[in-house]
Amino acid sequence: MSSRTVIRGGLVITASDEIHADVLIEDGRVAALAASGTPAAEAFAAERTIDATGKYVIPGGVDVHTHMELPFGGTFASDTFETGTRAAAWGGTTTIVDFAVQSVGHSLREGLDAWHAKAEGNCAIDYGFHMIVSDVNQETLKEMDLLVEEGVTSFKQFMAYPGVFYSDDGQILRAMQRSAENGGLIMMHAENGIAIDVLVEQALARGETDPRYHGEVRKALLEAEATHRAIKLAQVAGAPLYVVHVSAMEAVAELARARDEGLNVFGETCPQYLFLSTDNLAEPDFEGSKYVCSTPLRPKEHQAKLWQGLRTNDLQVVSTDHCPFCFVGQKELGRGDFSKIPNGLPGVENRMDLLHQAVVDGHISRRRWIEIACATPARMFGMYPKKGTIAPGADADIVIYDPNAEQVMSAETHHMNVDYSAYEGKRTTGRVETVLSRGEPVITEREYTGRAGHGVYTPRSTCQYLN
Amino acid sequence: MSSRTVIRGGLVITASDEIHADVLIEDGRVAALAASGTPAAEAFAAERTIDATGKYVIPGGVDVHTHMELPFGGTFASDTFETGTRAAAWGGTTTIVDFAVQSVGHSLREGLDAWHAKAEGNCAIDYGFHMIVSDVNQETLKEMDLLVEEGVTSFKQFMAYPGVFYSDDGQILRAMQRSAENGGLIMMHAENGIAIDVLVEQALARGETDPRYHGEVRKALLEAEATHRAIKLAQVAGAPLYVVHVSAMEAVAELARARDEGLNVFGETCPQYLFLSTDNLAEPDFEGSKYVCSTPLRPKEHQAKLWQGLRTNDLQVVSTDHCPFCFVGQKELGRGDFSKIPNGLPGVENRMDLLHQAVVDGHISRRRWIEIACATPARMFGMYPKKGTIAPGADADIVIYDPNAEQVMSAETHHMNVDYSAYEGKRTTGRVETVLSRGEPVITEREYTGRAGHGVYTPRSTCQYLN
Amino acid sequence: MSSRTVIRGGLVITASDEIHADVLIEDGRVAALAASGTPAAEAFAAERTIDATGKYVIPGGVDVHTHMELPFGGTFASDTFETGTRAAAWGGTTTIVDFAVQSVGHSLREGLDAWHAKAEGNCAIDYGFHMIVSDVNQETLKEMDLLVEEGVTSFKQFMAYPGVFYSDDGQILRAMQRSAENGGLIMMHAENGIAIDVLVEQALARGETDPRYHGEVRKALLEAEATHRAIKLAQVAGAPLYVVHVSAMEAVAELARARDEGLNVFGETCPQYLFLSTDNLAEPDFEGSKYVCSTPLRPKEHQAKLWQGLRTNDLQVVSTDHCPFCFVGQKELGRGDFSKIPNGLPGVENRMDLLHQAVVDGHISRRRWIEIACATPARMFGMYPKKGTIAPGADADIVIYDPNAEQVMSAETHHMNVDYSAYEGKRTTGRVETVLSRGEPVITEREYTGRAGHGVYTPRSTCQYLN
Amino acid sequence: MSSRTVIRGGLVITASDEIHADVLIEDGRVAALAASGTPAAEAFAAERTIDATGKYVIPGGVDVHTHMELPFGGTFASDTFETGTRAAAWGGTTTIVDFAVQSVGHSLREGLDAWHAKAEGNCAIDYGFHMIVSDVNQETLKEMDLLVEEGVTSFKQFMAYPGVFYSDDGQILRAMQRSAENGGLIMMHAENGIAIDVLVEQALARGETDPRYHGEVRKALLEAEATHRAIKLAQVAGAPLYVVHVSAMEAVAELARARDEGLNVFGETCPQYLFLSTDNLAEPDFEGSKYVCSTPLRPKEHQAKLWQGLRTNDLQVVSTDHCPFCFVGQKELGRGDFSKIPNGLPGVENRMDLLHQAVVDGHISRRRWIEIACATPARMFGMYPKKGTIAPGADADIVIYDPNAEQVMSAETHHMNVDYSAYEGKRTTGRVETVLSRGEPVITEREYTGRAGHGVYTPRSTCQYLN
Repeated sequence: MSSRTVIRGGLVITASDEIHADVLIEDGRVAALAASGTPAAEAFAAERTIDATGKYVIPGGVDVHTHMELPFGGTFASDTFETGTRAAAWGGTTTIVDFAVQSVGHSLREGLDAWHAKAEGNCAIDYGFHMIVSDVNQETLKEMDLLVEEGVTSFKQFMAYPGVFYSDDGQILRAMQRSAENGGLIMMHAENGIAIDVLVEQALARGETDPRYHGEVRKALLEAEATHRAIKLAQVAGAPLYVVHVSAMEAVAELARARDEGLNVFGETCPQYLFLSTDNLAEPDFEGSKYVCSTPLRPKEHQAKLWQGLRTNDLQVVSTDHCPFCFVGQKELGRGDFSKIPNGLPGVENRMDLLHQAVVDGHISRRRWIEIACATPARMFGMYPKKGTIAPGADADIVIYDPNAEQVMSAETHHMNVDYSAYEGKRTTGRVETVLSRGEPVITEREYTGRAGHGVYTPRSTCQYLN
Repeated sequence: MSSRTVIRGGLVITASDEIHADVLIEDGRVAALAASGTPAAEAFAAERTIDATGKYVIPGGVDVHTHMELPFGGTFASDTFETGTRAAAWGGTTTIVDFAVQSVGHSLREGLDAWHAKAEGNCAIDYGFHMIVSDVNQETLKEMDLLVEEGVTSFKQFMAYPGVFYSDDGQILRAMQRSAENGGLIMMHAENGIAIDVLVEQALARGETDPRYHGEVRKALLEAEATHRAIKLAQVAGAPLYVVHVSAMEAVAELARARDEGLNVFGETCPQYLFLSTDNLAEPDFEGSKYVCSTPLRPKEHQAKLWQGLRTNDLQVVSTDHCPFCFVGQKELGRGDFSKIPNGLPGVENRMDLLHQAVVDGHISRRRWIEIACATPARMFGMYPKKGTIAPGADADIVIYDPNAEQVMSAETHHMNVDYSAYEGKRTTGRVETVLSRGEPVITEREYTGRAGHGVYTPRSTCQYLN
Repeated sequence: MSSRTVIRGGLVITASDEIHADVLIEDGRVAALAASGTPAAEAFAAERTIDATGKYVIPGGVDVHTHMELPFGGTFASDTFETGTRAAAWGGTTTIVDFAVQSVGHSLREGLDAWHAKAEGNCAIDYGFHMIVSDVNQETLKEMDLLVEEGVTSFKQFMAYPGVFYSDDGQILRAMQRSAENGGLIMMHAENGIAIDVLVEQALARGETDPRYHGEVRKALLEAEATHRAIKLAQVAGAPLYVVHVSAMEAVAELARARDEGLNVFGETCPQYLFLSTDNLAEPDFEGSKYVCSTPLRPKEHQAKLWQGLRTNDLQVVSTDHCPFCFVGQKELGRGDFSKIPNGLPGVENRMDLLHQAVVDGHISRRRWIEIACATPARMFGMYPKKGTIAPGADADIVIYDPNAEQVMSAETHHMNVDYSAYEGKRTTGRVETVLSRGEPVITEREYTGRAGHGVYTPRSTCQYLN
Repeated sequence: MSSRTVIRGGLVITASDEIHADVLIEDGRVAALAASGTPAAEAFAAERTIDATGKYVIPGGVDVHTHMELPFGGTFASDTFETGTRAAAWGGTTTIVDFAVQSVGHSLREGLDAWHAKAEGNCAIDYGFHMIVSDVNQETLKEMDLLVEEGVTSFKQFMAYPGVFYSDDGQILRAMQRSAENGGLIMMHAENGIAIDVLVEQALARGETDPRYHGEVRKALLEAEATHRAIKLAQVAGAPLYVVHVSAMEAVAELARARDEGLNVFGETCPQYLFLSTDNLAEPDFEGSKYVCSTPLRPKEHQAKLWQGLRTNDLQVVSTDHCPFCFVGQKELGRGDFSKIPNGLPGVENRMDLLHQAVVDGHISRRRWIEIACATPARMFGMYPKKGTIAPGADADIVIYDPNAEQVMSAETHHMNVDYSAYEGKRTTGRVETVLSRGEPVITEREYTGRAGHGVYTPRSTCQYLN
């Protein structure tokens, strides 16, 4: 197949540049860029031309934190790989990295195979896998080496959820030591779950069962403490560290301190921490349950420090931690006991738009938008420059984005398989028009033109972001 | 003129990407990039083809801190704009920003005109001007607005050199307030010159006259103090700040602290602080005078903190502060009194090579090399993407760099108009092969093919680096 | 004279102990302490017995920052040494250290002689002098040595008030170097007066003339900056440093940082910063002028950080900076121009009571009350254990304090020679009952029984507080 | 009994004062102090007079960290309460607080009773108990309240020694919450034992079995991490915290940071960390085993930071962690496996002398010596002013100390029941002459005149040191 597409007249925005250029796509890759209007650009010939005049031409979003079909608390995240990746495409995201799960007593391989089975043939966009390591032992450590070699180069551990995903400090240290050798990157859920469980028990004993208590017991100090501890364990191991879903300003401060010391320590936050707060958790009639996730939403004053962290590069990535559970039938499992509410929010469709809104609001620049949502996640997890940029040789994962269109977020119009929106009624400026995945149109002028199975598994190299 | 050049087969390195691409140049600009070997690349037609196989294709260096022909201490920096820009080209630098000087009692305009006269028609590469403000008054403040409009968008002030360039804190505050309004960027020589002059007088009174005392009296603490003070004044003024030639680790710490607070504070260091130390200042037979510059060289342990600052982006730019004085006849003015040694080192020709050596040594990555030496200086001083990158529409200021060639730095072989090299005998890996300035070959396979007058004045927009 | 007094039954509180003890006074000194009710206590025989049952027996207050009769802005502080020391005694203070002033162009000696003349024969309580150094030159530096030898062991410099008291950084460094040799202690008024004067001029030009603008132009950041600078100059000089009237939380942070590094850096705050705020400066009808002092009052949120600093010993002393100017005729000089309002507040009578209120309010412990108001000021300025404690051999400067009595502060009832109270209407718990100065009753059950001339000049040794 | 003693002519040194005073003792308590030479002093009549001319008269030392007869690693600390307290007295210490141990599965009461049985009737000086909590459960928490009421007001937990003394973060949080209510003080052994055990296993697997590896695996970073974690848990619980045997400068930094934030966080160090280093651990022929304790000795550069912490009050107490094991037969258990070496050093006899040497060496002042070794430990653990000072009403626990005598530390001459000295051959200036415990001579001019059983159990109030 020698299909060619040319995108003409748009403003091409990458993490480093904003240029008026035409983009030539050949065989699913970016073949060339030329300054619009030059003879070189005019020489571009293609079967298909997309007029991007007045639009942005940006790399497709890279969301490195999703949980399609995740089993949690006796139920499953409501988006399958099919529905979830379709929704991602609608939102301008063209790559996800989801989490395969090792169950205690089972091998990494078993977990990875299971997740491959869920995803294969079902995805509208490309995907990769991280591996959740729930059971560190000699076999697991050996398997880590193998997985790195075959493109699963990142491993998540939990300092929370004792008895489920929890690793103790010795297991964390061993995994970090191994990653220091094999090039893998440890991703950490940093909350002191042992201490939190004491507070949960005490809160429930006092009759504090509403969703808002979820936010009170999972204290910011206990996120910061675990963040600090993970950093120190990584320092002992000589390994880099990526902290997922940072929500507390005190945790940002720990990351900043570590980075000032020159450590290879990285932090991710999510749109829910930037746009929502404990006010949402306190919504009446159990509505607060819609916003239950861990780490939890924080009081509003934390938001400014998260934005600052994104500007000063103490936080490097914004992903979604997309893990939707329907209000009806799923979130409701926790009525009368907040600790039984499935943890997670929908968001894979909203990320690129919310971050563009942050551009409009002056929190970040356009280039920083692309950097935190596309380029750095791709680098951090070994997919650059295939993913995350528009450059000759890169996959033609490209979004035509209308910066002036207005929209209202709503469960009525979104494409995620969940019965509520965390941002219901929120007006934003900017909208995805057309989305190409390896040159193929998945969204075409706001119609879904993709298909389940177009998306392919993407093995990854090791982290490309180290100092 | 419709001259076209194509550079084939090299590894194009920018601040963000490393891609195997062919670069098409039309009319002095980058017209297009195409993935090497693709039909798109093969379609590139040009009068001239440069084979860059096995080489790096990098943006020409942007050196934002040079002092050609600077009058200092009764003599003049020994490089003219002609000799200095030619040497710069030999070293892979295609843009300099030099400092026009306001004399006390004179207008900014007079100083700027004088510097234009020195440069015009003499430069081998493009150049711009910062303005040294020595006399802040109501007229000066008004002139600052005019200069910003015409492309002189940065203003240097000195907290050192009382009686010469020195501004007091009130003058600094006023200039910063003005720059907060007109978009100019204040560049600060941050040393507490009032305190230093006391220490100089005391040292000389004790008979401590050798060059090494230059390093002892200009204490790291007094650089850090001034850095802190400049930051606080900028914070009061609501203005960004760029601190030049940071050499003390304590000063880096002040910058890091300010950046952690989200302030738009930036720092530049120079190769001499990264590669030389007080050991050089202590060389016998007055050889130490060759290394006298201000801020001074520091003990070796500071180097690691400077490299760390460059990695963690607490320092953003490496420029040279190129200000050469011959050992014979110039440096010698300070025999018997270190305070009379003209301050300054040659370096405009060495910067790109030394920083490539830092890549070889593992201090920084290839992309960071280009970022701190090309892209960020261009952004910081309003020349991006015209300068500092290789992207469609950018000026075709391009260097073909052989990463494997070896060379030995020496006054015998360098092209700067000065009778010594600060790096005499230093072996480095990597060498400039060919240099294009707006598409014209200035260095062609290690022959000088440029001409005085090719380089043109480059007016600049305001800082493009703010958060 | 062999007069003996015994104080029976009170709770003796010092900086370190709280003991139920009887105190025997012989010849103006504490001769002995014995546990109340023991044979040893019963053996105490004396001409005069004071029953302190249910009362505190505390060291007389030591106020190391007063300005009696200070010439400022064309007028004089309204308390003479006679009225001021009498008021001090009413407030439980038995020692003041006032500031003799060197005028520019005159010697230290001339200033000191002048202040001796003002005080001698007029004081109700003992007094000493610091020396304000306005003109650092070789003669001044030599005189500093002499003054230290004769008991004037501390020297104040100003980073504010250019053209009046101001010293530049070179003058500060020289004085600090000298103090490092002769054991003197530099006391610093830390505000960047050069920058502040720019802001004053700009504010007045904008028509911002009310007292509240005094608080706005003298920015907290500029106090913190100067504090940091003074610390670094002291570090270069190898000298200890005492920062007077710290009011900004950012300045406290600088002191804390320096102390964490092990530097001998000390800070004093004053009751007005602990109990008043910019709200007072904003009082209408020019009432705000009553609260104009420098450093200025700060927004309320600074108070908590000052209390914390007192608890964590980042601040060591509370003195008053007593410098009263009447509202009528003096403060009014600044109507229409806040910069002409004489700077200063009355307070010498209120300090011990306000700090006892802080004990009642839980900000500090009883022992810390005595430490910051009596013991540490005495140690810091070389008067310990003669002053500042109740121990055998110490001067019998003792206050019988009723911790349960209530009072209302008011200009109607206070004894300072000024027509307003900064704390008008404030209700406090605790009251001075009886005050002894070297064994002699100055206040006897709330009657003044002292006399001008009882107080004698107290030469001081060098600082006894260094680590 | 109405025995009276008067100590004449010495320099009485307390944490706050240095006074020339005679001390009258009646019925085991300090009855009175009078300025030497005054009629009040001459009036002191007593059966016994001690001439202290030219000597210091200081409070008896308070050592709040000893482990007499501690079962550890299959053996017992070699000092009994009889031998250990006698040695303590020889070294000028008149009060110890030892650690009763709860065994897992047993009650606090059982442990406390067992320790009472060991001590009762055997001690030469007074003693109290802390309680080691090894098994936090609902019963334990209730017992904590009871123990606080009866004078055991401090509870030690271990973040190290998994499977023995270890508490997890939930158990720590629960105990801290309880102490926040009942006034108890949590003492923390802060080392991440879970991570350390991984490093121990790996070291042994590599054949690294010598004593010096004990110092390498118990990393400073893992002490600092645990210190930080304990601080954060205490902050969540709203409880104060006392960290025992701080040895790493990074841990001191964590304490300093917490104290700057105003937290009630305290730190103790020990003479071995101040005077010994990893150099000792590396002594050949298994001699290093003599220096095996946890936290371990650190490289020499940590010492300066510990001294600084003692000066800046980021460390408040120096105790011994006295826990002697004979080289022959006990330390030897760990030949071939450093992890089997019983942890602990002898030192109860050396502390006061070593700290006086620190006075001589200029590390601390005389008053600070008494503060960190007598007064603050007494306050911190609720024994002040009964213990830790010389003031009317206090127990007459007094040491006559000759500041000029010289001695050489040696196992040949010391009185501890252990076959080596950690300071063998060390020359020090200063020596205990006479020791009184509640007025009774235990050491009389360097003869032992005490008796087992003189020392009585001392119930304690809650912490008197909080801000």
